Amino acid sequence: MITPASQAPGAVPFGDDMAAVPGTARWLWTTDLLCEGVDFIVPGPGYDQIGRKAMAVNLSDCAAMAVHPRAALCALSLRRDTAAADAESIVRGIAEMGRAFGCTLVGGDTNVWDQPAVIAVTVMGEADGEQPPVRRDGARPGDRLFVTGPVGGSILGRHLAVRPRVREALAINRALRPHAMIDISDGLAIDLHRVLEASNCGARLDREALEAVIHDDARRLSRDTGRPALDHALEDGEDFELIVALSPETDPAVVPDVSLLPIGCIVEERGCHIVETNGRATPLAARGWEYRLG
Amino acid sequence: MITPASQAPGAVPFGDDMAAVPGTARWLWTTDLLCEGVDFIVPGPGYDQIGRKAMAVNLSDCAAMAVHPRAALCALSLRRDTAAADAESIVRGIAEMGRAFGCTLVGGDTNVWDQPAVIAVTVMGEADGEQPPVRRDGARPGDRLFVTGPVGGSILGRHLAVRPRVREALAINRALRPHAMIDISDGLAIDLHRVLEASNCGARLDREALEAVIHDDARRLSRDTGRPALDHALEDGEDFELIVALSPETDPAVVPDVSLLPIGCIVEERGCHIVETNGRATPLAARGWEYRLG
Repeated sequence: MITPASQAPGAVPFGDDMAAVPGTARWLWTTDLLCEGVDFIVPGPGYDQIGRKAMAVNLSDCAAMAVHPRAALCALSLRRDTAAADAESIVRGIAEMGRAFGCTLVGGDTNVWDQPAVIAVTVMGEADGEQPPVRRDGARPGDRLFVTGPVGGSILGRHLAVRPRVREALAINRALRPHAMIDISDGLAIDLHRVLEASNCGARLDREALEAVIHDDARRLSRDTGRPALDHALEDGEDFELIVALSPETDPAVVPDVSLLPIGCIVEERGCHIVETNGRATPLAARGWEYRLG
Repeated sequence: MITPASQAPGAVPFGDDMAAVPGTARWLWTTDLLCEGVDFIVPGPGYDQIGRKAMAVNLSDCAAMAVHPRAALCALSLRRDTAAADAESIVRGIAEMGRAFGCTLVGGDTNVWDQPAVIAVTVMGEADGEQPPVRRDGARPGDRLFVTGPVGGSILGRHLAVRPRVREALAINRALRPHAMIDISDGLAIDLHRVLEASNCGARLDREALEAVIHDDARRLSRDTGRPALDHALEDGEDFELIVALSPETDPAVVPDVSLLPIGCIVEERGCHIVETNGRATPLAARGWEYRLG
Protein backbone atom coordinates (compact mmCIF):
# COMPACT_ATOMS: atom_id res chain seq x y z
CA MET A 1 0.00 0.00 0.00
CA ILE A 2 2.89 2.32 0.71
CA THR A 3 4.16 4.05 -2.41
CA PRO A 4 7.70 2.96 -3.30
CA ALA A 5 10.33 5.64 -2.97
CA SER A 6 12.82 6.15 -5.75
CA GLN A 7 15.77 3.97 -4.94
CA ALA A 8 19.47 3.99 -5.51
CA PRO A 9 20.80 1.09 -7.63
CA GLY A 10 21.74 -1.85 -5.41
CA ALA A 11 19.74 -0.51 -2.47
CA VAL A 12 17.49 -2.81 -0.46
CA PRO A 13 14.23 -2.81 -2.46
CA PHE A 14 10.99 -1.47 -1.06
CA GLY A 15 8.95 -4.16 0.67
CA ASP A 16 11.70 -6.20 2.31
CA ASP A 17 11.72 -6.84 6.08
CA MET A 18 13.62 -3.62 6.63
CA ALA A 19 14.00 -0.43 4.62
CA ALA A 20 17.25 1.25 3.68
CA VAL A 21 18.08 4.54 5.35
CA PRO A 22 18.70 6.84 2.36
CA GLY A 23 22.12 8.40 2.40
CA THR A 24 23.65 5.68 4.57
CA ALA A 25 25.27 2.56 3.24
CA ARG A 26 25.12 0.29 6.27
CA TRP A 27 21.89 1.16 8.08
CA LEU A 28 18.43 -0.34 7.77
CA TRP A 29 15.32 0.25 9.83
CA THR A 30 11.93 -1.27 10.46
CA THR A 31 8.76 -0.50 12.37
CA ASP A 32 6.12 -2.86 13.76
CA LEU A 33 2.96 -1.91 15.58
CA LEU A 34 1.21 -4.24 18.06
CA CYS A 35 -2.43 -3.83 19.03
CA GLU A 36 -4.20 -5.00 22.18
CA GLY A 37 -6.82 -7.60 21.34
CA VAL A 38 -5.06 -8.54 18.10
CA ASP A 39 -1.39 -9.10 18.92
CA PHE A 40 -1.70 -9.38 22.70
CA ILE A 41 -4.28 -9.32 25.43
CA VAL A 42 -4.18 -7.35 28.67
CA PRO A 43 -3.37 -8.27 31.38
CA GLY A 44 -2.75 -11.67 29.77
CA PRO A 45 0.91 -12.58 29.90
CA GLY A 46 2.03 -9.59 31.93
CA TYR A 47 2.94 -6.15 30.73
CA ASP A 48 6.66 -6.75 30.53
CA GLN A 49 6.11 -9.72 28.23
CA ILE A 50 3.94 -7.55 25.99
CA GLY A 51 6.80 -5.08 25.78
CA ARG A 52 9.24 -7.91 25.08
CA LYS A 53 7.11 -9.11 22.19
CA ALA A 54 6.77 -5.59 20.73
CA MET A 55 10.57 -5.38 20.57
CA ALA A 56 11.09 -9.01 19.53
CA VAL A 57 9.05 -8.77 16.33
CA ASN A 58 11.29 -5.91 15.22
CA LEU A 59 14.45 -7.81 16.18
CA SER A 60 13.11 -10.67 14.07
CA ASP A 61 13.09 -8.32 11.08
CA CYS A 62 16.77 -7.65 11.80
CA ALA A 63 17.31 -11.43 11.87
CA ALA A 64 15.54 -11.78 8.52
CA MET A 65 18.14 -9.47 6.95
CA ALA A 66 21.09 -10.61 9.10
CA VAL A 67 21.88 -7.18 10.52
CA HIS A 68 22.79 -6.13 14.06
CA PRO A 69 19.92 -4.40 15.88
CA ARG A 70 21.49 -1.26 17.37
CA ALA A 71 18.86 1.20 18.59
CA ALA A 72 15.13 1.54 19.06
CA LEU A 73 12.37 4.09 19.60
CA CYS A 74 8.95 3.19 20.98
CA ALA A 75 5.63 4.99 20.68
CA LEU A 76 2.82 3.93 23.00
CA SER A 77 -0.82 4.81 23.28
CA LEU A 78 -2.23 3.44 26.52
CA ARG A 79 -5.65 3.40 28.10
CA ARG A 80 -6.10 6.34 30.46
CA ASP A 81 -6.68 3.95 33.38
CA THR A 82 -3.40 2.08 32.87
CA ALA A 83 -1.41 2.07 36.11
CA ALA A 84 1.92 3.88 35.81
CA ALA A 85 3.68 0.71 37.03
CA ASP A 86 2.15 -1.29 34.17
CA ALA A 87 3.21 1.32 31.62
CA GLU A 88 6.71 1.14 33.06
CA SER A 89 6.62 -2.66 32.79
CA ILE A 90 5.87 -2.42 29.07
CA VAL A 91 8.80 -0.05 28.54
CA ARG A 92 11.05 -2.21 30.72
CA GLY A 93 10.11 -5.26 28.63
CA ILE A 94 10.92 -3.39 25.42
CA ALA A 95 14.26 -2.20 26.80
CA GLU A 96 15.27 -5.57 28.27
CA MET A 97 14.48 -7.57 25.16
CA GLY A 98 16.43 -5.05 23.10
CA ARG A 99 19.39 -5.09 25.46
CA ALA A 100 19.64 -8.88 25.18
CA PHE A 101 20.35 -8.40 21.48
CA GLY A 102 22.56 -5.30 21.65
CA CYS A 103 19.73 -2.90 20.80
CA THR A 104 19.39 0.22 22.99
CA LEU A 105 16.04 1.92 23.56
CA VAL A 106 16.93 5.59 23.08
CA GLY A 107 13.61 7.43 23.12
CA GLY A 108 9.92 7.43 22.42
CA ASP A 109 6.51 8.99 22.62
CA THR A 110 3.81 8.18 25.18
CA ASN A 111 0.13 8.95 24.62
CA VAL A 112 -3.03 8.25 26.52
CA TRP A 113 -6.52 7.54 25.19
CA ASP A 114 -9.67 5.62 26.08
CA GLN A 115 -9.05 2.72 23.67
CA PRO A 116 -7.02 -0.49 23.75
CA ALA A 117 -3.24 -0.20 23.94
CA VAL A 118 -1.03 0.24 20.91
CA ILE A 119 2.75 -0.24 20.93
CA ALA A 120 4.86 0.79 17.94
CA VAL A 121 8.57 -0.01 18.06
CA THR A 122 11.07 1.16 15.44
CA VAL A 123 14.50 -0.49 15.26
CA MET A 124 17.64 0.53 13.45
CA GLY A 125 20.01 -2.21 12.33
CA GLU A 126 23.56 -2.12 11.05
CA ALA A 127 25.14 -4.39 8.47
CA ASP A 128 27.44 -7.07 9.89
CA GLY A 129 30.98 -5.98 8.97
CA GLU A 130 31.45 -6.35 5.23
CA GLN A 131 28.46 -8.71 4.85
CA PRO A 132 25.65 -7.04 2.93
CA PRO A 133 22.15 -7.53 4.42
CA VAL A 134 20.34 -10.62 3.15
CA ARG A 135 17.34 -9.68 1.02
CA ARG A 136 14.26 -11.70 0.15
CA ASP A 137 14.60 -11.23 -3.60
CA GLY A 138 17.78 -13.23 -4.24
CA ALA A 139 16.54 -16.85 -4.34
CA ARG A 140 17.62 -18.67 -7.54
CA PRO A 141 16.53 -21.92 -9.21
CA GLY A 142 18.57 -24.75 -7.73
CA ASP A 143 18.80 -23.16 -4.27
CA ARG A 144 17.94 -25.43 -1.37
CA LEU A 145 15.39 -24.21 1.15
CA PHE A 146 15.73 -24.55 4.93
CA VAL A 147 14.01 -23.41 8.09
CA THR A 148 15.87 -22.73 11.33
CA GLY A 149 13.45 -24.78 13.47
CA PRO A 150 10.09 -26.53 13.66
CA VAL A 151 6.98 -24.41 13.16
CA GLY A 152 3.24 -24.30 13.84
CA GLY A 153 0.98 -24.07 16.87
CA SER A 154 2.71 -20.97 18.28
CA ILE A 155 -0.66 -19.83 19.65
CA LEU A 156 -0.18 -22.39 22.45
CA GLY A 157 2.36 -20.02 24.00
CA ARG A 158 5.41 -19.41 21.85
CA HIS A 159 3.70 -16.44 20.12
CA LEU A 160 4.21 -14.49 23.34
CA ALA A 161 7.73 -15.65 24.16
CA VAL A 162 9.24 -14.66 20.84
CA ARG A 163 12.93 -15.50 20.51
CA PRO A 164 14.27 -13.62 17.49
CA ARG A 165 16.88 -15.56 15.52
CA VAL A 166 19.36 -12.71 15.30
CA ARG A 167 22.45 -14.70 16.33
CA GLU A 168 21.49 -17.59 14.07
CA ALA A 169 20.98 -15.22 11.12
CA LEU A 170 24.36 -13.55 11.59
CA ALA A 171 26.09 -16.95 11.83
CA ILE A 172 24.30 -18.24 8.74
CA ASN A 173 25.16 -15.11 6.76
CA ARG A 174 28.84 -15.26 7.73
CA ALA A 175 29.21 -18.95 6.92
CA LEU A 176 26.94 -19.46 3.95
CA ARG A 177 25.96 -16.13 2.33
CA PRO A 178 22.31 -17.09 1.75
CA HIS A 179 20.68 -15.96 -1.48
CA ALA A 180 17.50 -15.01 0.39
CA MET A 181 15.99 -15.01 3.89
CA ILE A 182 12.73 -14.04 5.56
CA ASP A 183 11.33 -14.50 9.05
CA ILE A 184 8.15 -16.52 9.50
CA SER A 185 5.88 -13.90 11.03
CA ASP A 186 2.63 -14.65 9.17
CA GLY A 187 3.18 -18.33 8.33
CA LEU A 188 5.64 -20.57 6.45
CA ALA A 189 3.45 -20.74 3.34
CA ILE A 190 2.70 -17.03 2.97
CA ASP A 191 6.19 -15.88 3.93
CA LEU A 192 7.76 -18.37 1.50
CA HIS A 193 5.45 -17.02 -1.21
CA ARG A 194 6.79 -13.54 -0.46
CA VAL A 195 10.34 -14.78 -1.12
CA LEU A 196 9.22 -16.47 -4.33
CA GLU A 197 7.35 -13.42 -5.56
CA ALA A 198 10.25 -11.06 -4.79
CA SER A 199 12.73 -13.50 -6.37
CA ASN A 200 10.51 -14.21 -9.39
CA CYS A 201 10.76 -17.99 -9.05
CA GLY A 202 8.92 -21.00 -7.59
CA ALA A 203 9.54 -23.76 -5.05
CA ARG A 204 9.01 -27.47 -4.62
CA LEU A 205 8.69 -28.58 -1.02
CA ASP A 206 9.34 -32.17 0.03
CA ARG A 207 6.38 -33.72 1.86
CA GLU A 208 8.57 -36.02 3.95
CA ALA A 209 10.96 -33.21 4.88
CA LEU A 210 8.02 -31.03 5.92
CA GLU A 211 6.90 -33.74 8.36
CA ALA A 212 10.18 -33.18 10.21
CA VAL A 213 9.55 -29.43 10.70
CA ILE A 214 6.11 -29.79 12.30
CA HIS A 215 6.41 -28.41 15.83
CA ASP A 216 5.05 -30.52 18.70
CA ASP A 217 2.69 -27.60 19.41
CA ALA A 218 1.25 -27.97 15.90
CA ARG A 219 0.53 -31.65 16.61
CA ARG A 220 -1.06 -30.82 19.96
CA LEU A 221 -3.13 -28.04 18.41
CA SER A 222 -4.18 -30.37 15.60
CA ARG A 223 -5.87 -32.66 18.14
CA ASP A 224 -8.04 -29.72 19.27
CA THR A 225 -8.78 -28.14 15.92
CA GLY A 226 -9.14 -31.31 13.84
CA ARG A 227 -6.96 -29.72 11.14
CA PRO A 228 -3.86 -31.63 9.96
CA ALA A 229 -0.74 -30.74 11.95
CA LEU A 230 1.02 -29.96 8.67
CA ASP A 231 -1.56 -27.24 7.94
CA HIS A 232 -0.71 -25.63 11.26
CA ALA A 233 3.00 -25.85 10.43
CA LEU A 234 2.43 -24.22 7.04
CA GLU A 235 -0.16 -21.61 7.93
CA ASP A 236 0.24 -20.57 11.57
CA GLY A 237 1.95 -17.25 12.15
CA GLU A 238 4.28 -15.87 14.83
CA ASP A 239 6.93 -18.54 14.83
CA PHE A 240 9.80 -16.23 13.89
CA GLU A 241 11.98 -19.00 12.57
CA LEU A 242 13.80 -18.06 9.37
CA ILE A 243 13.33 -19.42 5.85
CA VAL A 244 16.77 -19.61 4.21
CA ALA A 245 17.59 -20.12 0.51
CA LEU A 246 21.11 -21.49 0.09
CA SER A 247 23.22 -22.15 -2.97
CA PRO A 248 23.49 -25.94 -3.59
CA GLU A 249 27.28 -25.56 -3.25
CA THR A 250 27.03 -24.62 0.42
CA ASP A 251 27.13 -27.04 3.34
CA PRO A 252 24.48 -26.12 5.93
CA ALA A 253 26.17 -28.35 8.49
CA VAL A 254 29.11 -25.95 8.90
CA VAL A 255 27.18 -23.31 10.90
CA PRO A 256 27.92 -23.94 14.57
CA ASP A 257 24.94 -24.24 16.94
CA VAL A 258 22.40 -23.56 14.22
CA SER A 259 20.07 -26.24 12.89
CA LEU A 260 19.03 -25.82 9.27
CA LEU A 261 16.18 -28.18 8.46
CA PRO A 262 15.72 -28.84 4.72
CA ILE A 263 12.24 -28.37 3.28
CA GLY A 264 12.72 -28.27 -0.50
CA CYS A 265 14.26 -26.31 -3.32
CA ILE A 266 13.78 -23.31 -5.56
CA VAL A 267 12.67 -23.91 -9.15
CA GLU A 268 12.34 -21.64 -12.16
CA GLU A 269 8.62 -22.22 -12.70
CA ARG A 270 6.46 -19.84 -10.63
CA GLY A 271 4.23 -21.23 -7.91
CA CYS A 272 4.84 -23.45 -4.93
CA HIS A 273 4.11 -27.19 -4.76
CA ILE A 274 4.37 -29.92 -2.16
CA VAL A 275 5.82 -33.08 -3.68
CA GLU A 276 4.73 -36.45 -2.20
CA THR A 277 7.04 -39.45 -2.05
CA ASN A 278 5.19 -40.88 -5.06
CA GLY A 279 6.07 -37.73 -7.05
CA ARG A 280 2.58 -36.22 -7.03
CA ALA A 281 2.73 -32.42 -6.64
CA THR A 282 -0.06 -30.40 -5.01
CA PRO A 283 -0.12 -26.59 -5.06
CA LEU A 284 0.51 -24.80 -1.75
CA ALA A 285 -1.74 -21.76 -1.31
CA ALA A 286 -0.28 -18.55 0.16
CA ARG A 287 -2.39 -18.91 3.26
CA GLY A 288 -1.43 -17.43 6.62
CA TRP A 289 -2.07 -14.46 8.84
CA GLU A 290 -3.14 -11.51 6.73
CA TYR A 291 -4.62 -8.16 7.55
CA ARG A 292 -7.39 -7.12 5.21
CA LEU A 293 -9.28 -3.86 4.98
CA GLY A 294 -12.99 -3.66 4.09
CA MET B 1 9.07 7.19 31.66
CA ILE B 2 11.55 5.66 29.25
CA THR B 3 14.79 4.66 30.92
CA PRO B 4 17.72 6.72 29.72
CA ALA B 5 20.31 4.83 27.73
CA SER B 6 23.95 5.25 28.57
CA GLN B 7 25.21 8.04 26.39
CA ALA B 8 28.40 9.08 24.74
CA PRO B 9 29.87 12.38 25.96
CA GLY B 10 28.56 15.27 23.87
CA ALA B 11 25.69 13.18 22.49
CA VAL B 12 22.18 14.59 22.32
CA PRO B 13 20.79 13.92 25.80
CA PHE B 14 17.82 11.68 26.42
CA GLY B 15 14.52 13.57 26.37
CA ASP B 16 15.22 16.10 23.64
CA ASP B 17 12.93 16.40 20.60
CA MET B 18 14.95 13.75 18.80
CA ALA B 19 17.22 10.94 19.96
CA ALA B 20 20.72 10.26 18.73
CA VAL B 21 21.29 7.16 16.64
CA PRO B 22 24.07 5.36 18.55
CA GLY B 23 27.13 4.75 16.43
CA THR B 24 26.38 7.59 14.03
CA ALA B 25 27.59 11.14 14.47
CA ARG B 26 25.16 13.02 12.24
CA TRP B 27 21.85 11.19 12.52
CA LEU B 28 18.91 11.76 14.87
CA TRP B 29 15.47 10.19 14.89
CA THR B 30 12.07 10.71 16.42
CA THR B 31 8.70 8.97 16.57
CA ASP B 32 5.23 10.42 17.13
CA LEU B 33 1.99 8.52 17.37
CA LEU B 34 -1.38 10.10 16.52
CA CYS B 35 -4.67 8.65 17.76
CA GLU B 36 -8.15 9.04 16.28
CA GLY B 37 -10.40 10.94 18.67
CA VAL B 38 -7.42 12.56 20.41
CA ASP B 39 -5.19 14.01 17.70
CA PHE B 40 -7.64 13.88 14.81
CA ILE B 41 -11.21 12.91 14.03
CA VAL B 42 -12.42 10.78 11.14
CA PRO B 43 -13.60 11.65 8.54
CA GLY B 44 -13.08 15.21 9.81
CA PRO B 45 -10.54 17.04 7.71
CA GLY B 46 -10.04 14.27 5.16
CA TYR B 47 -7.73 11.31 5.32
CA ASP B 48 -4.87 12.89 3.42
CA GLN B 49 -4.79 15.79 5.86
CA ILE B 50 -4.63 13.33 8.75
CA GLY B 51 -1.63 11.72 7.10
CA ARG B 52 -0.07 15.13 6.52
CA LYS B 53 -0.40 15.98 10.19
CA ALA B 54 1.09 12.64 11.29
CA MET B 55 4.19 13.44 9.25
CA ALA B 56 4.24 17.15 10.11
CA VAL B 57 4.52 16.66 13.88
CA ASN B 58 7.67 14.60 13.28
CA LEU B 59 9.07 17.18 10.86
CA SER B 60 8.47 19.75 13.58
CA ASP B 61 10.79 17.73 15.85
CA CYS B 62 13.43 18.00 13.12
CA ALA B 63 12.80 21.76 13.06
CA ALA B 64 13.24 21.93 16.84
CA MET B 65 16.77 20.53 16.46
CA ALA B 66 17.55 22.21 13.12
CA VAL B 67 18.26 19.01 11.22
CA HIS B 68 17.23 17.94 7.72
CA PRO B 69 14.41 15.37 7.71
CA ARG B 70 15.61 12.65 5.33
CA ALA B 71 13.52 9.47 5.61
CA ALA B 72 10.42 8.12 7.33
CA LEU B 73 8.63 4.90 8.23
CA CYS B 74 4.95 4.74 9.12
CA ALA B 75 2.98 2.16 11.09
CA LEU B 76 -0.80 2.24 10.87
CA SER B 77 -3.57 0.42 12.63
CA LEU B 78 -6.86 1.11 10.91
CA ARG B 79 -10.45 0.09 11.54
CA ARG B 80 -11.35 -3.03 9.60
CA ASP B 81 -14.10 -1.15 7.74
CA THR B 82 -11.73 1.57 6.47
CA ALA B 83 -12.01 1.84 2.69
CA ALA B 84 -8.77 1.00 0.89
CA ALA B 85 -8.93 4.40 -0.84
CA ASP B 86 -9.02 6.15 2.55
CA ALA B 87 -6.06 4.14 3.80
CA GLU B 88 -4.18 5.12 0.65
CA SER B 89 -5.11 8.77 1.25
CA ILE B 90 -3.52 8.64 4.70
CA VAL B 91 -0.31 7.20 3.29
CA ARG B 92 -0.36 9.67 0.39
CA GLY B 93 -0.72 12.53 2.90
CA ILE B 94 2.22 11.22 4.92
CA ALA B 95 4.38 10.84 1.79
CA GLU B 96 3.44 14.22 0.29
CA MET B 97 4.05 16.19 3.46
CA GLY B 98 7.41 14.46 3.82
CA ARG B 99 8.38 15.08 0.21
CA ALA B 100 7.73 18.82 0.62
CA PHE B 101 10.51 18.84 3.21
CA GLY B 102 12.94 16.43 1.55
CA CYS B 103 11.85 13.45 3.66
CA THR B 104 11.19 10.19 1.80
CA LEU B 105 8.70 7.61 3.09
CA VAL B 106 10.62 4.36 2.66
CA GLY B 107 8.48 1.71 4.35
CA GLY B 108 5.99 0.79 7.02
CA ASP B 109 3.63 -1.62 8.66
CA THR B 110 -0.15 -1.77 8.16
CA ASN B 111 -2.48 -3.42 10.64
CA VAL B 112 -6.22 -3.75 10.96
CA TRP B 113 -8.37 -3.87 14.06
CA ASP B 114 -11.84 -2.91 15.29
CA GLN B 115 -10.76 0.22 17.16
CA PRO B 116 -10.05 3.85 16.22
CA ALA B 117 -7.16 4.54 13.90
CA VAL B 118 -3.57 4.95 15.09
CA ILE B 119 -0.77 6.40 12.97
CA ALA B 120 2.85 6.22 14.13
CA VAL B 121 5.47 7.95 12.00
CA THR B 122 9.22 7.72 12.61
CA VAL B 123 11.55 10.22 10.97
CA MET B 124 15.30 10.24 10.59
CA GLY B 125 17.07 13.58 10.38
CA GLU B 126 20.61 14.54 9.40
CA ALA B 127 22.70 17.36 10.80
CA ASP B 128 22.98 20.43 8.56
CA GLY B 129 26.53 20.37 7.22
CA GLU B 130 28.93 21.17 10.03
CA GLN B 131 26.22 22.69 12.26
CA PRO B 132 25.54 20.51 15.29
CA PRO B 133 21.83 19.93 16.09
CA VAL B 134 20.32 22.54 18.42
CA ARG B 135 19.43 21.03 21.78
CA ARG B 136 17.00 22.22 24.40
CA ASP B 137 19.54 22.19 27.24
CA GLY B 138 21.85 24.99 26.14
CA ALA B 139 20.01 28.15 27.24
CA ARG B 140 22.17 30.48 29.38
CA PRO B 141 21.41 33.44 31.64
CA GLY B 142 21.41 36.58 29.51
CA ASP B 143 20.05 34.81 26.40
CA ARG B 144 17.14 36.52 24.73
CA LEU B 145 14.03 34.47 24.01
CA PHE B 146 12.07 34.57 20.75
CA VAL B 147 9.23 32.75 19.03
CA THR B 148 9.00 32.33 15.27
CA GLY B 149 5.39 33.48 15.06
CA PRO B 150 2.19 34.26 16.98
CA VAL B 151 0.61 31.45 18.96
CA GLY B 152 -2.67 30.31 20.52
CA GLY B 153 -6.08 29.22 19.30
CA SER B 154 -4.73 26.58 16.91
CA ILE B 155 -7.86 24.50 17.60
CA LEU B 156 -9.73 26.84 15.26
CA GLY B 157 -8.02 25.12 12.33
CA ARG B 158 -4.25 25.48 12.31
CA HIS B 159 -3.82 22.33 14.46
CA LEU B 160 -4.73 20.31 11.37
CA ALA B 161 -2.76 22.28 8.80
CA VAL B 162 0.57 22.01 10.58
CA ARG B 163 3.42 23.81 8.81
CA PRO B 164 6.66 22.60 10.39
CA ARG B 165 9.30 25.32 10.67
CA VAL B 166 12.12 23.26 9.18
CA ARG B 167 13.42 25.89 6.76
CA GLU B 168 13.19 28.63 9.39
CA ALA B 169 15.10 26.47 11.89
CA LEU B 170 17.92 25.70 9.46
CA ALA B 171 18.23 29.40 8.57
CA ILE B 172 18.25 30.43 12.23
CA ASN B 173 20.87 27.82 13.10
CA ARG B 174 23.14 28.85 10.22
CA ALA B 175 22.91 32.56 10.98
CA LEU B 176 22.71 32.71 14.76
CA ARG B 177 23.75 29.39 16.36
CA PRO B 178 20.96 29.40 18.99
CA HIS B 179 21.82 28.14 22.45
CA ALA B 180 18.52 26.23 22.64
CA MET B 181 15.37 25.55 20.64
CA ILE B 182 12.13 23.60 21.03
CA ASP B 183 8.93 23.39 19.01
CA ILE B 184 5.66 24.46 20.63
CA SER B 185 3.70 21.22 20.44
CA ASP B 186 2.04 21.26 23.88
CA GLY B 187 1.97 25.01 24.56
CA LEU B 188 4.38 27.96 24.90
CA ALA B 189 4.40 27.81 28.71
CA ILE B 190 4.99 24.07 29.12
CA ASP B 191 7.47 23.80 26.25
CA LEU B 192 9.42 26.81 27.56
CA HIS B 193 9.51 25.13 30.98
CA ARG B 194 11.04 22.08 29.30
CA VAL B 195 13.85 24.26 27.94
CA LEU B 196 14.38 25.86 31.36
CA GLU B 197 14.42 22.52 33.15
CA ALA B 198 16.87 20.96 30.69
CA SER B 199 19.06 24.08 30.78
CA ASN B 200 18.84 24.47 34.56
CA CYS B 201 17.85 28.13 34.48
CA GLY B 202 14.78 30.42 34.57
CA ALA B 203 13.11 33.01 32.38
CA ARG B 204 11.47 36.41 32.63
CA LEU B 205 8.87 37.11 29.95
CA ASP B 206 7.87 40.63 29.03
CA ARG B 207 4.09 41.17 29.33
CA GLU B 208 4.02 43.78 26.58
CA ALA B 209 6.10 41.65 24.22
CA LEU B 210 3.79 38.68 24.87
CA GLU B 211 0.81 40.77 23.73
CA ALA B 212 2.48 40.95 20.31
CA VAL B 213 2.69 37.14 19.94
CA ILE B 214 -0.99 36.45 20.61
CA HIS B 215 -2.40 34.91 17.44
CA ASP B 216 -5.65 36.35 16.04
CA ASP B 217 -7.13 32.87 16.56
CA ALA B 218 -6.35 33.13 20.28
CA ARG B 219 -8.28 36.41 20.42
CA ARG B 220 -11.22 34.92 18.51
CA LEU B 221 -11.22 31.83 20.72
CA SER B 222 -11.06 34.04 23.81
CA ARG B 223 -14.40 35.57 22.89
CA ASP B 224 -15.97 32.07 22.94
CA THR B 225 -14.23 30.66 25.98
CA GLY B 226 -14.16 33.77 28.12
CA ARG B 227 -10.52 33.06 28.97
CA PRO B 228 -7.94 35.79 28.33
CA ALA B 229 -6.40 35.60 24.86
CA LEU B 230 -2.95 35.58 26.50
CA ASP B 231 -3.83 32.35 28.31
CA HIS B 232 -4.63 30.73 24.99
CA ALA B 233 -1.33 31.99 23.59
CA LEU B 234 0.58 30.57 26.55
CA GLU B 235 -1.26 27.29 27.06
CA ASP B 236 -2.74 26.11 23.77
CA GLY B 237 -0.85 23.31 22.04
CA GLU B 238 -0.23 22.35 18.41
CA ASP B 239 1.16 25.63 17.14
CA PHE B 240 4.52 24.24 16.08
CA GLU B 241 6.26 27.60 16.15
CA LEU B 242 9.75 27.45 17.65
CA ILE B 243 11.03 28.92 20.92
CA VAL B 244 14.58 30.16 20.33
CA ALA B 245 17.19 31.17 22.94
CA LEU B 246 19.83 33.45 21.40
CA SER B 247 23.03 34.91 22.75
CA PRO B 248 22.57 38.64 23.43
CA GLU B 249 25.43 39.27 20.96
CA THR B 250 23.42 38.00 18.01
CA ASP B 251 21.18 40.10 15.78
CA PRO B 252 17.90 38.28 15.09
CA ALA B 253 17.16 40.66 12.21
CA VAL B 254 19.86 39.10 10.02
CA VAL B 255 17.93 35.88 9.27
CA PRO B 256 16.26 36.39 5.89
CA ASP B 257 12.50 35.69 5.65
CA VAL B 258 12.24 34.58 9.28
CA SER B 259 10.49 36.65 11.90
CA LEU B 260 11.84 36.29 15.41
CA LEU B 261 9.46 37.87 17.90
CA PRO B 262 11.06 38.71 21.28
CA ILE B 263 9.26 37.45 24.40
CA GLY B 264 11.81 37.81 27.22
CA CYS B 265 15.14 36.58 28.47
CA ILE B 266 16.84 33.75 30.34
CA VAL B 267 17.85 34.32 33.96
CA GLU B 268 19.89 32.30 36.41
CA GLU B 269 17.13 31.95 39.01
CA ARG B 270 14.91 28.92 38.35
CA GLY B 271 11.25 29.42 37.52
CA CYS B 272 9.44 31.46 34.91
CA HIS B 273 7.81 34.85 35.49
CA ILE B 274 5.82 37.32 33.45
CA VAL B 275 6.97 40.90 34.13
CA GLU B 276 4.39 43.70 33.83
CA THR B 277 5.32 47.20 32.63
CA ASN B 278 5.21 48.32 36.29
CA GLY B 279 7.83 45.72 37.14
CA ARG B 280 5.51 43.33 38.97
CA ALA B 281 6.44 39.69 38.25
CA THR B 282 3.86 36.87 38.32
CA PRO B 283 4.85 33.20 38.08
CA LEU B 284 3.92 31.36 34.88
CA ALA B 285 2.72 27.81 35.54
CA ALA B 286 3.86 25.00 33.23
CA ARG B 287 0.35 24.51 31.92
CA GLY B 288 -0.43 23.06 28.49
CA TRP B 289 -1.41 19.87 26.79
CA GLU B 290 -0.28 16.91 28.87
CA TYR B 291 -1.01 13.22 28.75
CA ARG B 292 -1.57 11.70 32.13
CA LEU B 293 -2.06 8.09 33.12
CA GLY B 294 -4.36 7.00 35.89
